[in-house]
This record gives sequence, structure tokens and C-alpha cells, in this order.
Amino acid sequence: MTVRILAVNCNTDAAMTTAIATAGQAAASAGTTVVGVTPAWGPASAEGYVESFVTAAAVMDAVARRTDAFDAVVMAGFGEHGREGMRQLVPQPVVDITEAAAFAACLLGHRFGVVTTVGSTVAGIRDSLMTMGMSARCSSVRAADVPISAIDADVARTADALEETGRAVMVDGADVLVLGCAGFAGLDAELERRLGVPVVDGVAAAVRFAESLIALGKRTSAHGPYAPRAAHKRWTGAPLGSLMSSDSGERTPE
Amino acid sequence: MTVRILAVNCNTDAAMTTAIATAGQAAASAGTTVVGVTPAWGPASAEGYVESFVTAAAVMDAVARRTDAFDAVVMAGFGEHGREGMRQLVPQPVVDITEAAAFAACLLGHRFGVVTTVGSTVAGIRDSLMTMGMSARCSSVRAADVPISAIDADVARTADALEETGRAVMVDGADVLVLGCAGFAGLDAELERRLGVPVVDGVAAAVRFAESLIALGKRTSAHGPYAPRAAHKRWTGAPLGSLMSSDSGERTPE
Amino acid sequence: MTVRILAVNCNTDAAMTTAIATAGQAAASAGTTVVGVTPAWGPASAEGYVESFVTAAAVMDAVARRTDAFDAVVMAGFGEHGREGMRQLVPQPVVDITEAAAFAACLLGHRFGVVTTVGSTVAGIRDSLMTMGMSARCSSVRAADVPISAIDADVARTADALEETGRAVMVDGADVLVLGCAGFAGLDAELERRLGVPVVDGVAAAVRFAESLIALGKRTSAHGPYAPRAAHKRWTGAPLGSLMSSDSGERTPE
Amino acid sequence: MTVRILAVNCNTDAAMTTAIATAGQAAASAGTTVVGVTPAWGPASAEGYVESFVTAAAVMDAVARRTDAFDAVVMAGFGEHGREGMRQLVPQPVVDITEAAAFAACLLGHRFGVVTTVGSTVAGIRDSLMTMGMSARCSSVRAADVPISAIDADVARTADALEETGRAVMVDGADVLVLGCAGFAGLDAELERRLGVPVVDGVAAAVRFAESLIALGKRTSAHGPYAPRAAHKRWTGAPLGSLMSSDSGERTPE
Amino acid sequence: MTVRILAVNCNTDAAMTTAIATAGQAAASAGTTVVGVTPAWGPASAEGYVESFVTAAAVMDAVARRTDAFDAVVMAGFGEHGREGMRQLVPQPVVDITEAAAFAACLLGHRFGVVTTVGSTVAGIRDSLMTMGMSARCSSVRAADVPISAIDADVARTADALEETGRAVMVDGADVLVLGCAGFAGLDAELERRLGVPVVDGVAAAVRFAESLIALGKRTSAHGPYAPRAAHKRWTGAPLGSLMSSDSGERTPE
Amino acid sequence: MTVRILAVNCNTDAAMTTAIATAGQAAASAGTTVVGVTPAWGPASAEGYVESFVTAAAVMDAVARRTDAFDAVVMAGFGEHGREGMRQLVPQPVVDITEAAAFAACLLGHRFGVVTTVGSTVAGIRDSLMTMGMSARCSSVRAADVPISAIDADVARTADALEETGRAVMVDGADVLVLGCAGFAGLDAELERRLGVPVVDGVAAAVRFAESLIALGKRTSAHGPYAPRAAHKRWTGAPLGSLMSSDSGERTPE
Repeated sequence: MTVRILAVNCNTDAAMTTAIATAGQAAASAGTTVVGVTPAWGPASAEGYVESFVTAAAVMDAVARRTDAFDAVVMAGFGEHGREGMRQLVPQPVVDITEAAAFAACLLGHRFGVVTTVGSTVAGIRDSLMTMGMSARCSSVRAADVPISAIDADVARTADALEETGRAVMVDGADVLVLGCAGFAGLDAELERRLGVPVVDGVAAAVRFAESLIALGKRTSAHGPYAPRAAHKRWTGAPLGSLMSSDSGERTPE
Repeated sequence: MTVRILAVNCNTDAAMTTAIATAGQAAASAGTTVVGVTPAWGPASAEGYVESFVTAAAVMDAVARRTDAFDAVVMAGFGEHGREGMRQLVPQPVVDITEAAAFAACLLGHRFGVVTTVGSTVAGIRDSLMTMGMSARCSSVRAADVPISAIDADVARTADALEETGRAVMVDGADVLVLGCAGFAGLDAELERRLGVPVVDGVAAAVRFAESLIALGKRTSAHGPYAPRAAHKRWTGAPLGSLMSSDSGERTPE
Repeated sequence: MTVRILAVNCNTDAAMTTAIATAGQAAASAGTTVVGVTPAWGPASAEGYVESFVTAAAVMDAVARRTDAFDAVVMAGFGEHGREGMRQLVPQPVVDITEAAAFAACLLGHRFGVVTTVGSTVAGIRDSLMTMGMSARCSSVRAADVPISAIDADVARTADALEETGRAVMVDGADVLVLGCAGFAGLDAELERRLGVPVVDGVAAAVRFAESLIALGKRTSAHGPYAPRAAHKRWTGAPLGSLMSSDSGERTPE
Repeated sequence: MTVRILAVNCNTDAAMTTAIATAGQAAASAGTTVVGVTPAWGPASAEGYVESFVTAAAVMDAVARRTDAFDAVVMAGFGEHGREGMRQLVPQPVVDITEAAAFAACLLGHRFGVVTTVGSTVAGIRDSLMTMGMSARCSSVRAADVPISAIDADVARTADALEETGRAVMVDGADVLVLGCAGFAGLDAELERRLGVPVVDGVAAAVRFAESLIALGKRTSAHGPYAPRAAHKRWTGAPLGSLMSSDSGERTPE
Repeated sequence: MTVRILAVNCNTDAAMTTAIATAGQAAASAGTTVVGVTPAWGPASAEGYVESFVTAAAVMDAVARRTDAFDAVVMAGFGEHGREGMRQLVPQPVVDITEAAAFAACLLGHRFGVVTTVGSTVAGIRDSLMTMGMSARCSSVRAADVPISAIDADVARTADALEETGRAVMVDGADVLVLGCAGFAGLDAELERRLGVPVVDGVAAAVRFAESLIALGKRTSAHGPYAPRAAHKRWTGAPLGSLMSSDSGERTPE
Repeated sequence: MTVRILAVNCNTDAAMTTAIATAGQAAASAGTTVVGVTPAWGPASAEGYVESFVTAAAVMDAVARRTDAFDAVVMAGFGEHGREGMRQLVPQPVVDITEAAAFAACLLGHRFGVVTTVGSTVAGIRDSLMTMGMSARCSSVRAADVPISAIDADVARTADALEETGRAVMVDGADVLVLGCAGFAGLDAELERRLGVPVVDGVAAAVRFAESLIALGKRTSAHGPYAPRAAHKRWTGAPLGSLMSSDSGERTPE
């Protein structure tokens, strides 16, 4: 099977998009191409509510502008808003890395904990877990105090910070860890080695789960909250004009 | 006290903004000015997830562009996303009409029901009630099958549809109704007369609650998830460039 | 608008009633008169379950005995029982300071914490938050170990205790504080200054929210659990004979 | 073992007290004496919030006035408020018939439904189940539209109404029924015969559970929310003066 | 009344069965015979998920093999799986010691804590409390690090460990303790003396609650999830062949 | 990648095992071998609590007896107990079809509904969804009144029954359906065609998710509730003697 998955970064940092796509490709099956997508506008990093709501729109804009074919969308912003919008926008399966990581973690342990970047992202991650129904399976969300911009500056130090925060999350009751930032992609193996528990990288999990849905021939429900709407086409303003021409494929507007 | 409240419409329909501002002004204290704000871009109506996430960004953009002084923001989109972002963006109190209506309803009855426009908005309204903690106080959310664009075309018919749906919501266990769209502003009295239960118009309630917070001298917490971030200023792209110059007033970035 | 609000103390300490009424008046709009009401019988302070259930009856008795006109009732006992009874007793809006504080706090921050007097009140406050649906928005309820009788004896010491407990509540995750006793009314500004987060005084918030409901022309639902009952008039015993003559105004008994 | 249990009616109808005590005695072990207690004041029937909060105080008053020895208190008002207060008032075990019925039902089936008297009691019963943690085990609470005053007027008709409502509750998912009024005591066998599912009479269950706690030598916790308070003794007003002399036995005030 | 209660140990340690039966008999009414039952196969101790699911089957097997008459079943494995199966298997009342302890604790205090043996049992106990609806009433479950096999080796040391863990559970908010292992039966009085709060032994509570249900003439619901099934008789394999001949008494298969 | 997945039927019907393995193989990647496993003993079909708890043990026994290598276990009993035990038993990833179906459904729609066989399985399925944290995402679980033994007897009639029940579940609020029985495997495409919404077959989803976890190199957490226990080796009785020799691979007993 040859599949093409868009891995959409939630910020405008092209280097981070490349890192995400590389990590996603490394996790993918042979035959899968992971295409990194960088929003044309939006925050340089998304680490709080303002940025999260802006990137929700920017990411939909970026996908709506695509003229190439793709089989699924991976939303590579941990805890960011917008997955419900993306599901309404395109008919292909949409997998948010927050969901993929939480679900994979639930298959590997009893309760998971999230290790994220900075404190300003914690509330949004909790909200995301709540709306997906995973609050009760999450022991805690803790920040390692590593801003996104500093992750790659000193990877060893980043790993140390994640390890320390991971230990705190385990004390809170987690037997599985979830990496709470797309920028942490690829650090799961190192942390597993240090901590002795499964560590889930949402980008990798999302790529595999997206492949699974594609292989099963599934598409997002066109009945109910994600039904495409003709009204999508009535917009004002250039910035998001792309959404005016969104082709919702075989899904019939309600 | 002379106060100035921005009532931000969540769509680009200027006539609807005028209607919202008028309804808000009618509900306001003497000395309060309610200023309608229309986003410069975004959906003509917000009745689903794609539109809701786009308007969340558009509404923040609209407020960030203001150069005039204001004392509070009323977010006049029922069930729309973004209130947490707005709270992080500006230091003044932010009152979402969904919150205001739910809280007012809880002060007037035991369980409230929401009567909204069309079915595509129901899931988003439920999500909003869940994240604010009001799910257990809400008996049901039902759509009257009146698209926003049709509300004013035949007001009598709109009132009839709301009455019928209101009766269904009461059967579900509600003893108070909430009007689930800013476009319904002003219909509460008529529905109260017909149904014999309190009917809450979120725009009116939000204006009064915003005045209350202003009078009490309160501002959004600058500690925790709504703390302003210096990083807000790092953006790519013109559309939301406004957010680059957002003045978060006396709140110190963390 | 000229409005008259009864602020009902939950204990029989007339000095405390005066303090509550003064604080409520200070928070009120011009044109509003806040009338303090002291129950004719009941506990000298309400700091536990026995006292709370007794005062629930005493406070209804006190309001039922009123022969003057009023526009709303503010129940000035934090966490005390009885708001549902008061809503059934009189047709005017009833605002419990626990509700008002919780709702105001939710408009100002992401999660609130309650700082109350002594440990014996904590469980009742939690119950109150649970039945109003606010448990998930509350990070913790902590006691400052300041009995009601000691609040005014040494205000500086009271403020110190509240500050210390407030810091503990913030560590628990609160970005807004709620003063968990009517006797703390007026201390919010001082604590805001010390702690740097919004501090909500329920008495002040309740007066403003009551004014809001009055201005919006709302009354408690006469349909459902708060419907007045003719059976109210069948009582035995003098103490609460007052309830026999309760005039539930325009609300028709079910 | 010779034990003496106070079965406290929640209204002032002495005939109903006698019926409750008779039903309780019939359910009791040999050696147990069930003593009916009628409050000296309060509502003729408790079928709503006003009455429920008044009777919470009246019932505590009635027990505080007892000069005889007793081993446990059964609170025979289904869904009425006040059990937490009674637990703080006396050191002996306190069993509310709402709790006893719910717990017994959970031992006999998967989900229980409550059949109560009139609609005005439903919300209070739901609140009671929520604070005791039993909401998720209850499929529904439905009223048979039989006021308390009419139960005995035509027992056959009462049984017919309970049967019909019981069938509705079973459709809602219940495999066990709970009789939602102390006045229904004794009708459980007849309804079991008609409906083919276990039917729990809270009075009978509470008497047996009270005996169990006595036999096990247990008393209410004097640590935490039910710790007796010396402050109980500071009261104003004759009506509840009884509480001034409440002897909380071996429990030491905190 | 002469009643016969099967107290089914969840492991194959006959000495522990004797201890459980002895403790149950000590708690029983005159006229009650508590018969200890040891499964014919299964784990030597049940302290984790594998053992818990095996013992669920083994315990049903043991009861299905009984040829003597009995009036109720007490399942004497704290937190072990299988109570729903036992309820479907036999028509007599089934009381799980986890349920009995939780319900008794709720009648004696506001929130209970569980003190169990080793950490590997904690998750299963939490699951059990969740499915019975008691999670919100439980402050915490903590292990004393006393393996079942070590309980009787040094009773004084066991009591010391329980005391220390009990104090931690009280700090977590418990005002009542629950002994989280059938092997702790009989230690409640000693711990009450040390800690000053009620301590509930589930075996004793379950025997008394089983007697209560028998006295009230109740049987498990044969309508709904626990309805006996004719299909029970279609099995493969000798080990559980006993279940093929289970006589579900007067309950008619659905 | 060459992987070998055990697909364990929860009953002793070898024909059903074959059907499950065939469906699983059809859904699998090239390079994956799906090996059907039939328990050596247990129920001919699992459609209720007794059978579910027996099969939990039988399925662990069947896997413990395997002497061949395998990479993951798929538990092919919808709603059956035991996944936590299997996770403790073997170090390889374990995917329950109930989990896989629920998680896949959440990636494809807003709320899912389950269509199962007969009413006696509904409560167990609800319990399973509750312990995995998915209750709030499930609109309803409904039975098509098709016993497992009748599924293949008349496939057209089975499809008709599932369609009718599927429509009822959609009225309850589902926008995605989940097939609530391993025996329904392969009917998802036909139902999607009829109903126009995604229909998830848990067997297919579980095989793909198991492959995903294998590809990501993940194993069940050996820290916490699923840690292997040396005590597993202390058993009495031949039937489950297999568990005595379970090799928990590289996971060190705690």
C-alpha cells in the first residue's frame, strides 16, 4: 500500500516541521510517505491559549490550500486546538498526536502521565484530554521547563529534564509516559532506557494509527458534528480565503 | 461609572453585530457603552467546528487591533471557541455569552436547557459547557432548525420554532431555558411569556456580568494559564500580525 | 433603577450582619440598598453541618417574616445549605455567595481555590460546589484556621493567615482565589495586592449578580423543583410558623 | 443483643410515624426496639426543598431533645436533607433510608431506579444520591403522582401507581426498584410480586443496616467533618435550644 | 432465624479460609453459621490482576460445586473481580467485602480510605470502587507493604504497618478506614484504638449485610444483567464443568 | 517486518476462532500472521457475566500454554473481562478489541455507539468502556437480539438486525458505529454502505493497532499494576497449572 500522510506542524518553524516529518517517516511503514506541512502564518511556537487558537485556524488553512492528494492528516501539535475542525474540513482520517499518544499509552499501561515543555501549555493539554474522554486515565501533566525553542539547543539537557519530570509523573501514579510536545519526537527510546517504562511519542503513534485507519478504509464520519457544510464557502477576508475552495471530496454537505 | 464594553460578534455579518450591540446596550446600565466589533475576516456565520476555530482567531485579531480603550470584552458567539485565548490576550475581564447564560440560568433554576440554531452547532456547545464545568447542570441542547441567516427573515416563525424546541427541552428536564445563539438576543421576553419559565439571553447576561466584574475592579488572572506571554510577539504572516502589537497592559509576561 | 436586596447573614451575630451589609453596600450600584437580615434564632456562627442545616431553616424563616418589599435575596453564608429552599420560598432571584464567588472566579481564571475559616467547614463547601456543578473548576478548599469569631479580633493576623493559605491553594493549581466566608468580606483587595491573583469576595459578587438578574427582569423558575407549593402552608409549631404565611407572589402553586 | 433504634419521621404526622415504626419493627431482629420519633414542629409532609431544609433542622431538634438512651438513628425521610448534620450531632450510627435503600439495591442488582411520590421531590432525591456517590448506579427517579397524604387513602390505587411507575423505571434500565418514600414502607413485597424484580423499602433496610453497625460496635467518625463542636452550644432562640444541651457522648469536641 | 452463609476465600490457602470464617462467625448473629469455602484451584494469594481474574472463575466454580443449602454468599477477596458473575450464578444474595466495607464506611464517615497489602493490588481495588460507584467517596487507597503471606507471621508488625499507612490515608482526607484485605479481618478494633477513627473490616460488614438481605427476604435481581442464562450449561472442559450443573433455583433463564 | 499476532477467541467455538483469524488476517499488513487461539475450556459463547469471568481465566490459560513465539495478543471478545490480567501475564502488547474499536471510533467521529448481540452483554460492555475511560464518548450500547450462535446462520438477517439497531444508536447521538462482537467481524463494510457512517470492526482495528505498537517497539509497562509477579508461580490445581510456567520474558518480577 502506498500512502501519503500530511504531518502538519502547529507552528511556523520550518526546521521543526522537518524534524517532525523525519520522525514520522522513521516510524512509518514502508510505502508510506510523510509530508511535513508548515502553516503559512501563525506563531513561531504554540505554548499557550492564544497561540493554540491561532494555530488551529492556520493549520486548517494550510491543509485547505493543499492541491496534492493525501490519505490522512496527522496534527502534530500536542494539546493544540482544532482537531474537530480539521475533521469537518477534510474527509480523510485526521489523527491528533495528543489522541494517538493517549490511546497508545492506554494500550500499554494503566495510567499515563504527560511530560510537556512549559507550564503555560498544561491547562490546554488537560482540556484536550478532557474533551477526548481521557482525563481519568491521566495521572498528571507536568512541565519540564524546556521551552520549545530550547529543545534542540542542548538535547542532553532536554533529556535530563524530561527524565526528572518523568520520575515526578511516575510518582503521581503513571506507569506509562507520554511526550507532550511534537518537538520531543525521537526522544522516547532514550527515556525508556532511563526510566524503564514505555514512553510514547505521539508523532510516531499518530502516523501508525493513521496508516491503520487508511488500511481499514475508514474516513471521518460525514454524519453529525463533522458533516461538511456548504456554508464553509461563505467567508470574508483573504487570509483564510483558502477555506472557500476546500473540496470536501465525496462527503455531501448536510 | 462610565464603562465601555466591546461586544465581539463571531462572524463577519455587520448587521448582526449591530443587532448584538443594540441588544447589549438595551441590557446595560446607564453609563455603559456597548461597542459592537465585527471581525475583519472569517465566516459569515459560525455554525460548526471549522467556523468556530477560525472565528476564535479572527475575534482575537479584531480585539488586538483595537486602539481605543475598553473595560471588558463580551464574546458574543454562543458555544464558539476561543474564550481562553482572549483571556490570555487582554488583561480586561472577558465574558463569553455561553458562560454568562449558563451561570445566570443556574441562579434562576435547577437545570437549564439550551435552544440553539442548527444541529451542526450542538456538539460544540456541549464541549463548551463541559470545559466550563456546566455539563451536569444542562439537561439538553436542542436545535430549532433555524439557521442564523434565517433568524430575522421571519421573526414570528423563529419564535415559534424556539417555543416548540423550548417545550422539548423542558420535557428533557429543564426549568430554565438558554438562548443558544447571539442572534436570538432580544427574544427572551417573548419566549418567557409563551413558556412560563425564565429564558436567558446570553448577550444581556454577559453585558451585566461584565459590568459587575468591572465594578468589582477585577481583571483576568495573570498567574497561570492566562498569563500573557512575550512569545506572543513572535508571529509569521500579516493576517494576524495584529497580535504582535497586543498590549497586555499592566500584566507582566511570565 | 432603585433596588432593594436582602443580604441574609447565616448566623445570629448582628455585628457580622452589619459588616456584611456594609460590604455589600460598598459593592453595590448607586440606587441599590442592601439590607442586612439577621435570623431570629440559630447558631452564633455556622462552621459545620449541624449549624449549616439549622441556619438553612432559620434563614428561610427570617426571609418569610419580612413584610417589606425586596427585589432579591443574597444568601451570605459561604457553603451553607438552603439555597434551593430559598428559591422555592420566594419568587425573587436568590444568589448564594458560594455560587456567585465560584461563577465570578470562573470568569477571571482557569481554576479557583477556596480559602475558608476552619477545617470543619471544608466538607460542606465541597458539597455545595458539587451540587452546583463547580467541583471540576475548584483546585482545592483549604482552611486558614481562623474561626469566624476571630476574624475581626486581629485583622492583620487574619490577612496573614489568608495569605499563607492562599499561597498553598495556588500551589494546588488555583489562579484565582475565593474568600470562603462572608466574614472575610472586604479583604479581597488586600489579598490581591499580596498575592497577585484575583481574589473574589462572594458578598460583593453576589450583590452585583443579584442586581444583574433584577435588571434583566428575571425571577426564579416557577416550573420544576422550585415551584412554590400550597403545601408549604401546612406546618406544625410556632418557630417556623412564619413560613405558613409566606407570600410567594405571582408564582402559582403547582 | 438488645438494641433501641430511633426511627425519625421527617414530618409532623404522628400516624405516619406510627406506620414507619411498625414497618421498621417488622423488619427488625428479635431484641430490637424501634422507637418512632415525630418532630415537634415542621411540615405536615416533606415533598420539596423548603420542607426538606426545615425538617432537617426539626429532626435534629427532635433527636437532641431525647433523654432516653438509644443505639442508632434511622432517618426516615427519603431524599430529605440533614444526614450529615445528624452524624455530627450524635455519636451513635445514623442511617438515612435513602442511603440504606441505595446500598441494598446495589447489592441486589446492577442499576436501581427510584419510584417516589410527586414530582417536586425528584430533584432533592437526585441531589441526595449525588452527594452519597450513587448517581451512576441510579437509572432514573420517577414520581408516581401519589402525594404522601394520599398513600393510605387508597392503598390498592397506590400500589397500581407504583407498579406503573416501576415499569417505566425498569424501561429506563433498572433491575432493582427503590421505594422513594418512607410512607411506602411495607409495599415492597406486593410490588416484587407484581414486577418480578427486587423492591427495596428503605425503612426496613435502614433498620437492618443500623443493627449491623451496632453489632459491629461502630460509631460515626469523630475525626473530620462529623467531629462534634463545642460551638454547637452557642445558639440564639428557644426553638432549637435543645441543641444547646446536646450531649455528644464520648466524642470529644475538636 | 437460622441462616447459612458461604464465606468464599479468593485463594487456596485453607488456613486463611479458616481465619476468614472465624472472623465472619464472630461478627454474625446468633443463629447464623458462616461456612468457609476454599477454591479447589487458583492462586495461593490474590494480589494482582492475573490472580484476580483466575480467582473470579475459581470462586464461581467452588460455589457451583456446593451441594448443600445456603442463604447467601460473602465474597471474601478485597478488590477481587467476579461479584457480577456470582450474582448471575446463584439466586441468593451475594455480598462482596469490598462493597460491604465501602457502604458501611459511607454510613460512618464522610470519606473513607483503604489500607491494603501490597502495591500490586491498588489498581484493582480502584477499579472495583469505580464500577460500584464509590470512587468519589474514597480519598485514597494505600498499601502497607505487607504481603498476604506475612500478615500472620508477625501480627504486631502488621498492625504497626497498618497504623502508619492509616495515618497517611487520614492525611489524604479519610475520616474512616477500610481494611483492604480479608486477611486483615479482626484487626479493626486494634486499629480503631490506635487511630481514633472507625475502621471497617469488610468480612464482618459483609456477613452482617448478607444477614440483613436474607432477613428482608431479598434475592438478586433475575431481570437484567444478572438474569440466569440457559447457555451457562454449554461449556467445554472439565475444570469448570461444575458450572454446567449449576442450579439457579427459582430464577427462570431469560 | 514479519510479525505474529495471537488472536484469542473468548469462547471454545473453533469455527468462530477461524472466522476471527480470517478477518484479522484480512485486515493485517503483508508480513503479519494472525494465529487464531481457542481456549481449551470455557463457554461455548460468552454473553454475560459468568461466561465473561470464566473466559478471562481460560484465555490467560490458553496464552500461557503457548510455546511458540508471538509479538502481540489481540483479545477477541467484545466487552469481556481480563485485559488487565493478560497485560500482567505476558510482556508483549495486548490489544482488546473493545479498546481498539472505541479508540478507532473516537478518531473517526464525535460519539460512537455500540451494536452488540443480546441484552445480557450490554452491562459488561458498559463496564468495560467505563474502566477504559470511554463512557463519555459512547452515546449508547444496544443489542440487536442476535445471539452469537445465530450470527452466521442467516447473515442477511444478521445484517438487517444490525442495520436497524444501528439506526437506533444513531438516533441516540452516535456518528460512528462499533460492532460489539468479534463474531460480527467482516460486516463493517456492508453496514457502512447501508448506514452512511463509519462502522468499526474491533478485530480489524485491534490487529492494526497491535501491529502499530509492535512497529513502535513498545511493550506493556512492567512498572505498576501490570508488573509481572513471581507469585504467579504459586498455584493450586491442574486446570490453570499452565500459568505456573508462564515466562514473562525480559520483565523482571517486582
